[in-house]
Amino acid sequence: MTNNEQPTPSHMLDLKEWSKDNALNIFRTADEMSQILGRTIKKVPALQGFTVANLFFENSTRTKLSFERAAKALSADVMNFSASSSSLSKGESLKDTLRTLDAMQADLYIVRHGVSGAPYQLQKWTNAAIVNAGDGRRAHPTQALLDAFTFRTSFPNFDGFGGKKLVIVGDLMHSRVVRSNVELWTKLGAQVTLCGPNSLVPPALAAFEGVERNLNLAEAVEGAHAVMAVRIQHERMQKGLFPSLAEYRMRYQLNEKIMERAHPDALVMHPGPMNRDIEISGSLADSERSVIEKQVANGIPIRMAVLYTLLVGRKKS
Amino acid sequence: MTNNEQPTPSHMLDLKEWSKDNALNIFRTADEMSQILGRTIKKVPALQGFTVANLFFENSTRTKLSFERAAKALSADVMNFSASSSSLSKGESLKDTLRTLDAMQADLYIVRHGVSGAPYQLQKWTNAAIVNAGDGRRAHPTQALLDAFTFRTSFPNFDGFGGKKLVIVGDLMHSRVVRSNVELWTKLGAQVTLCGPNSLVPPALAAFEGVERNLNLAEAVEGAHAVMAVRIQHERMQKGLFPSLAEYRMRYQLNEKIMERAHPDALVMHPGPMNRDIEISGSLADSERSVIEKQVANGIPIRMAVLYTLLVGRKKS
Amino acid sequence: MTNNEQPTPSHMLDLKEWSKDNALNIFRTADEMSQILGRTIKKVPALQGFTVANLFFENSTRTKLSFERAAKALSADVMNFSASSSSLSKGESLKDTLRTLDAMQADLYIVRHGVSGAPYQLQKWTNAAIVNAGDGRRAHPTQALLDAFTFRTSFPNFDGFGGKKLVIVGDLMHSRVVRSNVELWTKLGAQVTLCGPNSLVPPALAAFEGVERNLNLAEAVEGAHAVMAVRIQHERMQKGLFPSLAEYRMRYQLNEKIMERAHPDALVMHPGPMNRDIEISGSLADSERSVIEKQVANGIPIRMAVLYTLLVGRKKS
Repeated sequence: MTNNEQPTPSHMLDLKEWSKDNALNIFRTADEMSQILGRTIKKVPALQGFTVANLFFENSTRTKLSFERAAKALSADVMNFSASSSSLSKGESLKDTLRTLDAMQADLYIVRHGVSGAPYQLQKWTNAAIVNAGDGRRAHPTQALLDAFTFRTSFPNFDGFGGKKLVIVGDLMHSRVVRSNVELWTKLGAQVTLCGPNSLVPPALAAFEGVERNLNLAEAVEGAHAVMAVRIQHERMQKGLFPSLAEYRMRYQLNEKIMERAHPDALVMHPGPMNRDIEISGSLADSERSVIEKQVANGIPIRMAVLYTLLVGRKKS
Repeated sequence: MTNNEQPTPSHMLDLKEWSKDNALNIFRTADEMSQILGRTIKKVPALQGFTVANLFFENSTRTKLSFERAAKALSADVMNFSASSSSLSKGESLKDTLRTLDAMQADLYIVRHGVSGAPYQLQKWTNAAIVNAGDGRRAHPTQALLDAFTFRTSFPNFDGFGGKKLVIVGDLMHSRVVRSNVELWTKLGAQVTLCGPNSLVPPALAAFEGVERNLNLAEAVEGAHAVMAVRIQHERMQKGLFPSLAEYRMRYQLNEKIMERAHPDALVMHPGPMNRDIEISGSLADSERSVIEKQVANGIPIRMAVLYTLLVGRKKS
Repeated sequence: MTNNEQPTPSHMLDLKEWSKDNALNIFRTADEMSQILGRTIKKVPALQGFTVANLFFENSTRTKLSFERAAKALSADVMNFSASSSSLSKGESLKDTLRTLDAMQADLYIVRHGVSGAPYQLQKWTNAAIVNAGDGRRAHPTQALLDAFTFRTSFPNFDGFGGKKLVIVGDLMHSRVVRSNVELWTKLGAQVTLCGPNSLVPPALAAFEGVERNLNLAEAVEGAHAVMAVRIQHERMQKGLFPSLAEYRMRYQLNEKIMERAHPDALVMHPGPMNRDIEISGSLADSERSVIEKQVANGIPIRMAVLYTLLVGRKKS
């Protein structure tokens, strides 16, 4: 293990550019951040004098608060920009808006945008570090990192991702969370099984090495170490992409009965926000197996680790 | 006086759970906070590393800014959450929203909600301290504390609440501010007289010990040490709950003439926002008797005292 | 040079009250602030314990963020108030709203308002310092300061404003930015030429000493040391104030060809937001001559200098 020699990327746009060792380093840094968050004074001056800017062109209270909390716990200043309140509505071009914001001399941008690849665009126009907080259907790397980190810290006697099996079930078609999780878990050595209605599980996603597609939930869950239910978009049904809510529940809802087929220690996950008793039974979501709230909580140490790593702790090649 | 032995509640949901000694301790702490606010550097590191979250499900710039100012003067980090920008609009349940927010590991929530009792609900789902910043028609404890604290610090030669008379006049029916003031002032030993149009002064409010109902303003104000006018909701009139604005003004407007019947040192109060020249004459609101602006200003030391007490200065039983 | 004897105004409402020496002192302080912003830790504790409040009755992300960044770089606390979220919508008067806010004990208000003179009104109701961040068609002093500061720091071998020529071209009629720039540059000793369609260049603006009006762009730009294009409001055209966008472009667009008539070192400026390829050609905006992004960047040291000067560094008479 010579992971110290692995240079760390300057941005977190997509996990493609982050190696297995880079990811494991984030986990180790997040362990330290978790310790800080366990103290009475949950704050360190590590990023004092740094400015982190939230650029949310799509609304997301949950993710924005999580990044804001992480930045403040490291004593960074936080600035919030939301597209609706901007000159974009006066017809200013996206480029000019970003160059203007960049003149504010932020050290790092956290970007969420409805268009896939937007954070890559932004990167061309700034010297600041960029963290992708979700772009179109493409990627949501910190969500995948916190999901895997939660498994790593919660699975009993965790001994590495190798040989572990993750099942993801639900509406996988348009999900950047799913794409980033597939990317990360396979890189870490786990095996991923995708499940859901035929129209919502794109075969292309299963083309990654270590990924399989199995539309029968009972079979898919067999022996799994973690099962992640993904939100069903109600809008989909109106477009006829699956028959009915009742049928969806019957065939794809994650519940206690289905979980009996998984590994005895298997964890239940959901990236939120949940539709209780639709893609997941409320009782399972509240059960001991469930680490759903831990996922949200782990968003803070993971994002602290990402901000810290990009701003001051980066290993250069 | 053995108030040091009185345990302090873990939350401030309703003043019911706060004893007279608990309230007096808040006042003493607020005295110290006022001194801090009188310095050039109006800030102390008392709550450094603590995170205070504003959860406003109802809009209130005034109250939110006051809590934010209080928290920052104690060096706490502040996070703002407003319901409209949340996943609640994506159909997530209130419980899941709150559990998600709780995963942000805030140390204290400031909650405003249109439904009476909502802060009690929230308390079940978190280990953080909760301060009620107004719930439905039920309670608004920090407003009552700042009102009483203003009387205590502004009434000439103040020698205790015992034997003092407070009159509250206006639309008392749906007012959480009135409920909390009645609760607090009677607990402190004062006598409270309620006045207003018959339909807007619920007899149930006068059932407390030490409270009387008198619909004749001139009689009600007789000998009062403090008179508080409460905002008239214009919407009420359309529902026919009182005859006309002209008649309201004639019978219930607080003005200089009516105040002649009060104690010579009597103070004029209003919890805001005012309808000038409706429930209170503009000239009276701007007169020397008026402590209306002091009420707003005292919101800061009182809220500093509440935050400080709940987070680090609590006396345990 | 005895500028140390010049008292500094208590507010920045309009540059009328600021002498040439006062402005030069701001520039010198901004030089120091620029050095701070060039460090890794872009923050000093100069305003720790001070509270700066943004009171934006008109929306402006760009200006608000710039002031917020400036305040935080000096370690001040920042509070944001926007009119739409306030009690103003409950019918509270402007005066009561401001008195209420003032009770929050902010040390300085940054005010933007659609009505000319509004910051002067506010000044009567508070003891805090006030910075005008744009009022109606009247003034936007920090924008003019950052424009002149950018010229001072970017023009090759800058040797003072005396004998320099600034051209401002575009829709000058309703622009507070133009008014403040004319005020400032002439005070500093520069000569200003105003250009644009006849209906959009008010003769009154040219009544200042040192200002001329020349509606022929090629003539106006002759020998200029700086040319500033100002945004065209599309709404204007519908009112028939100028013939067509095509004609506007042909006669008044700032582009490389026109700039050939200016001084060889002449700078191109725009206060933003730009309509690319309408009032300015996109290629000129992106050229080496352009200091448009520097203008935005300089907003931070200039606003730091203004906040610092008004709060702690003021020279008293």
